[in-house]
Amino acid sequence: MKQLYATRTNTVHRSFIREILKVTENSRVISFAGGLPNAALFPAKEIAQACVKVLNDDNTALQYSTTEGYLPLRQYIAQRYFKKYGLRISPDTITITNGSQQGLDLIGKIFIEKNDKVIIERPGYLGAIQAFSVYEPEFIPISLQDDGIDTSELATSLKKAKIKLFHMVANFQNPSGITYSKEKRLAIAEIFSSHNGILIEDDPYGDLRFEGESLPSIRHQLRDNIILLGTFSKIVAPGLRLGWVCASPEITDKIVVMKQASDLHSNYIAQRILYQYLVDNDVDEHISKITKVYGKQRSCMISAMGKYFPSEVKFTRPEGGMFLWLTLPNDLSSIKLFEAAIQEHLAFVPGRPFYVDGGGNNTCRLNFSNSDENKIEEGIKRLASIIKRLLITKP
Amino acid sequence: MKQLYATRTNTVHRSFIREILKVTENSRVISFAGGLPNAALFPAKEIAQACVKVLNDDNTALQYSTTEGYLPLRQYIAQRYFKKYGLRISPDTITITNGSQQGLDLIGKIFIEKNDKVIIERPGYLGAIQAFSVYEPEFIPISLQDDGIDTSELATSLKKAKIKLFHMVANFQNPSGITYSKEKRLAIAEIFSSHNGILIEDDPYGDLRFEGESLPSIRHQLRDNIILLGTFSKIVAPGLRLGWVCASPEITDKIVVMKQASDLHSNYIAQRILYQYLVDNDVDEHISKITKVYGKQRSCMISAMGKYFPSEVKFTRPEGGMFLWLTLPNDLSSIKLFEAAIQEHLAFVPGRPFYVDGGGNNTCRLNFSNSDENKIEEGIKRLASIIKRLLITKP
Repeated sequence: MKQLYATRTNTVHRSFIREILKVTENSRVISFAGGLPNAALFPAKEIAQACVKVLNDDNTALQYSTTEGYLPLRQYIAQRYFKKYGLRISPDTITITNGSQQGLDLIGKIFIEKNDKVIIERPGYLGAIQAFSVYEPEFIPISLQDDGIDTSELATSLKKAKIKLFHMVANFQNPSGITYSKEKRLAIAEIFSSHNGILIEDDPYGDLRFEGESLPSIRHQLRDNIILLGTFSKIVAPGLRLGWVCASPEITDKIVVMKQASDLHSNYIAQRILYQYLVDNDVDEHISKITKVYGKQRSCMISAMGKYFPSEVKFTRPEGGMFLWLTLPNDLSSIKLFEAAIQEHLAFVPGRPFYVDGGGNNTCRLNFSNSDENKIEEGIKRLASIIKRLLITKP
Repeated sequence: MKQLYATRTNTVHRSFIREILKVTENSRVISFAGGLPNAALFPAKEIAQACVKVLNDDNTALQYSTTEGYLPLRQYIAQRYFKKYGLRISPDTITITNGSQQGLDLIGKIFIEKNDKVIIERPGYLGAIQAFSVYEPEFIPISLQDDGIDTSELATSLKKAKIKLFHMVANFQNPSGITYSKEKRLAIAEIFSSHNGILIEDDPYGDLRFEGESLPSIRHQLRDNIILLGTFSKIVAPGLRLGWVCASPEITDKIVVMKQASDLHSNYIAQRILYQYLVDNDVDEHISKITKVYGKQRSCMISAMGKYFPSEVKFTRPEGGMFLWLTLPNDLSSIKLFEAAIQEHLAFVPGRPFYVDGGGNNTCRLNFSNSDENKIEEGIKRLASIIKRLLITKP
C-alpha cells in the first residue's frame, strides 16, 4: 500500500495538539491545552430559534447552493469590515469557507508549489503550518517580538529569496498572545508593498479584545497582495464551521474554482442559520459578554502566575484572545514539564510544535478561555509547584 | 500575479454544469440541467425539530469536535451498510466529510502524484474529474456499456500501466443512468483483486432504486484496496453537506490527517442534527416517498421521449437515481442543441464535459428529479421539436 501514497501524504502529521486533547478528555484534568471557546457562552437557544425560523420559511435552505456562499452573509461580513475597521470590501471578494482552516488549505492549493518559500511566525500558528505542509513548501520562520515579527529579518528574507506567502496573526497571536503594534503593521506594509508575494492576515481573535484599542488592518495599505481570513468560530460557535476568505477579485476567482473542486460549497443550512442569528440578535452585545468573561479569566491567570510562579518564568500579557505564552528558564524542557504535569492531571501545550525549525523547547502555550477562575487558580498553583520542583531537581 | 499560482491552479476549471445552472435561474426555464434533488421532499420540519432537540440538551453541539466525525452517526452508517448490503464495516473506518465531493478531494490529496494514472468512466462523473484534476493526474477513460465499464478494456489498461485509482459509480451512474450488472461487478473484483491500486465505489444514488433489486457492493470481494463513498445529500438533504468515506484502517488514518489539515472537521452541529433526525424518523419510509416521486418522473420522461422523439434518438432507462442519457444521431451536436434549446427556455447538460478525452459530442444528460410531470412532458415535447428541426436543417 505504501508506494501508492503521494509524497505529500508523508509530509503532514497529525496535529500534536489534537493528540494532546485526547489525554485531556478525562474530566479530572485541568486543561489549558485546547483552543476551545467556552461552550457555556454559545447562543444555543438563539441558534435553535434561527433554525426554526429559516426552515419554516424555506425548504431550499436544505438544497445545494453556490460555492461563493450565501450572499446576505457575505454582505454582512463586508458591512462589518466597514463598521469595525473602516475597510471598503466588496461582498464579491468574500468566499465562505468551512472555518478559516479551509481558507488556509485553499490558499495552499492555489499558491504553493513544492519547495516554494512560505514565511511563518516563530512561534507560528499550527493550523497554518499543517495546512500548508500538504503542498510541501519550505518554511522560513521569522522571530516574533513583543510587538510583532522582527521587520529587519522580514526585509532580509524578502531580499534573499522569492517568498510566496507570509502568514501572520496580527491580533492576540496563536500561540504567543502578542499583538502587532501599529508601527509594525505600517512597517510590514511598507516592506511588503513592493514585494511580489501574498500577505495572509489571519484574524480569528480580533473581536476578542479585553483592553486597549483596536488596531488597523494592513489591508488599508495593501490591496491585491493581501488575503484576509476571518471566522465566526470565536464570536458565535465553532461547531458551525463557518469562516471566510477575503481576497482580490482575481484570487477570489481561483478560490471559488478550488473550493468547488474541494467540496462544492460550505454547509448551506448552517450559513442560513448563522445569518438569521446575526440579524435577529445583538452580536456586539454577545461579543462583549464573551470578552468580559475571557478578560477576567486572563487576569486571573496572570495574577495567579504572578503569585505562584518563580520569577525566572516569563509570560506574555495578552490584551485579548484565548492564549498566553510561557518562557521557562532555558534549560527547563516544556516537554518534561508537560509529562510531569499530566501525572498531576494538568495539561497545556509544549511550545516545540509551533517552531517549524525546531527550538522553543522551554516554551508553553496556555489557554485561558475554557477554564473558570477556580480551575485557573488551582491549575496555575499546581503548575507552579511542579516548575519549582523541576527547577530544583534538574541535573 | 500570474506567476505566483501553483501549476495545479491552471489545470482545474469552473464546473461547466455550475455555469449552466446560472443560465437556468430564470424561473421561465424548464431545466433538466442540474443534479438537484426535489426540495419539496426535504424533511424541513423534522430537521428543525431535531435542531431544537439537540440544542436543548447540549451546548457542546456547537463546540469544536473530532476530525473523524460524530461517532453515533458513524455507527449508524456502519449499521446501515450491514442492513442494506450485508457488509460488516467498523465505524472506525468511516470518516464524515463535507459531502462526498470532499471524499474525492481527500482521496486525490492522499494518492495522486502529478502524472499518476487514474481510470475514469467514459462518460464519467464530473465532480470526480474536477476533484482529481487538482492533483494533475493522467486520466485513462474506459468506455461504459449498458451494464458497466468494458472489462476487457479495464484488464488491458491495468496490464499496460500502473493505475493508481479507478473511480466508478455502480448504481444509476452520473451522467449515464446505467447500473453495473452483478456479473460485471464480480468480473471487476476479479480483475482488480490482484492489482495494486484503489477502486473507488462512489454510491450517491444507491438508495434511490425505483425498480429491480439492489445489487451487491464490490466491497464483498475487495478489502484493503477499495474505498466506499456515500452521502446523505440525496436521501435527506444536500444543504447539510454530509457524506462519508469508508476505507481500510490504514487509509482512514491518512484521510483523518489530511482532513484535519483541510478543515479540522465537518460541521458538527449539522452532524448532530442529522443524527437526531435519523433516529427520530423512519428514514426508509422517507426514502420510499422520494423514490416513488422520482420513479414517476423518470417514467413520465421516458414515455414522453417515446412519444415525441424521432426514433434516431437513443436514451437510457435507469432503474433509479436522478439522470438519464440521450444519444443523438452522430452528426447532431448537443452543444448546438443546447444553444437552440436555451433560446426556447429549456436546459440540459451537453455530454462533452463528461469525456476526459473529448468525444460525446452527440450526447446529453437529462435530470428528472427536479421537475414535475407537467414540466417534464412540456420540456421533452419542446426538446423533441427542436431536435426534429435541427435534424432537418443540418447541413
